[in-house]
Amino acid sequence: MPRYRLTLEYDGRPYHGFQAQGALASVQASLERAVKGFTGEVLRVHTAGRTDAGVHATGQVVHVDLAKDWKPEVVRDALNAHLVPEPIVVLEASVAPEGWHARFSATERRYLYRILNRKSPPGLDQGRVWHVKKPLDAEAMHAAAQALVGHHDFTTFRDLACQAKSPMKTLDVVRVRREGELVLLDFASRSFLHRQVRSMTGSIAEVGVGRWSAEDLRASLAARDRTACGPVAPADGLYLTGVSYAS
Amino acid sequence: MPRYRLTLEYDGRPYHGFQAQGALASVQASLERAVKGFTGEVLRVHTAGRTDAGVHATGQVVHVDLAKDWKPEVVRDALNAHLVPEPIVVLEASVAPEGWHARFSATERRYLYRILNRKSPPGLDQGRVWHVKKPLDAEAMHAAAQALVGHHDFTTFRDLACQAKSPMKTLDVVRVRREGELVLLDFASRSFLHRQVRSMTGSIAEVGVGRWSAEDLRASLAARDRTACGPVAPADGLYLTGVSYAS
Repeated sequence: MPRYRLTLEYDGRPYHGFQAQGALASVQASLERAVKGFTGEVLRVHTAGRTDAGVHATGQVVHVDLAKDWKPEVVRDALNAHLVPEPIVVLEASVAPEGWHARFSATERRYLYRILNRKSPPGLDQGRVWHVKKPLDAEAMHAAAQALVGHHDFTTFRDLACQAKSPMKTLDVVRVRREGELVLLDFASRSFLHRQVRSMTGSIAEVGVGRWSAEDLRASLAARDRTACGPVAPADGLYLTGVSYAS
Repeated sequence: MPRYRLTLEYDGRPYHGFQAQGALASVQASLERAVKGFTGEVLRVHTAGRTDAGVHATGQVVHVDLAKDWKPEVVRDALNAHLVPEPIVVLEASVAPEGWHARFSATERRYLYRILNRKSPPGLDQGRVWHVKKPLDAEAMHAAAQALVGHHDFTTFRDLACQAKSPMKTLDVVRVRREGELVLLDFASRSFLHRQVRSMTGSIAEVGVGRWSAEDLRASLAARDRTACGPVAPADGLYLTGVSYAS
């Protein structure tokens, strides 16, 4: 019973998040329907991380245990055929090593947050960026955000509905850069709390528009209090870009 | 009666092209509805070039003659407010010089064609790229495409429905380059025939997959015969990126 590791790209807009929730559209339900269409099996697809409603992915990783040995490229192409016309595709499929698990074996998750920083709203990128009209100072955002790097209690940047046992996490990377009209934020951590990236992004943007100082951002982290968080950035601009594994 | 020059970005997917056609959704109809919502006037919006159904724009230019003098940024913001939630936005508005016309004053149109060149279909970019599975040789495409540059009879690359009086056009630029999984084609000309960019792109792609030689592409142009054209590339990957004016 080989375990297949699948790397996925999807547009989060039509879905109520990754996780199957009854009759609501979800990435998981669509994937499991595609698996059933392909092999006839009713199987659970396991993910490296559940993305929220409207959150996109360019490098989500999942696994599924199929009864038969298929060539990985056959699994990829067959699932893609069964996923048409949904905006979910399998980029890569491979046979996972013994004991490997999409969620438990993951050592790092990476997210990208895209802000469209101009007067006019998005035309082509509706639902795929957060539109911020006021000019953002990306360098100030980058400098201030470095206070979030390291091992901290991230209670401030954690949704009240978060089910993680501990608010302690280690943020490995946060990088803010401008590319023309876009301000891009990269995040990397072993794992994230619920809405952590969107909470941090909304607060870092407060620095970008000049409403917060770098010290205000540092103080909001130190407060360990959800009410100290800035406005939470919308799902539209968030992308799960990759997951790393030791093996 | 000031003439306003507007630069537009739009997602072509929901529209039957730029031009108003009765009750069908069109970029023009949406713009004229937004103008009416803003000033109450029923006015014609004139374009630098009609894009086909499904063709996108990041730099379309149009004009409209308003009765009153408005600050350009008020025109931009008001039209954008009236365009919500359509994927059409005004990027810039300015008062046009005396005698300036979006179409007749244009000296160059620029298009970008985006090909997603990988095994898996597009997830996030559905409707915004042409998906080509076979590996494309972008360098061979670029080299062969240079035969199209210059003043030629482009009958081969002209839709049979094209209403231009002459098939003679001067192609100033065609450039093909690879960016990761994308193969990008840039085109510039004073003006283009109907479906010329998509016809040229489809034929250049024949060189990219190795079905045509550079000589085959040259011969197809020389044939001056629509039946000598390769498959016409779909609207999905085409973007009007800019229009230049002498003044």
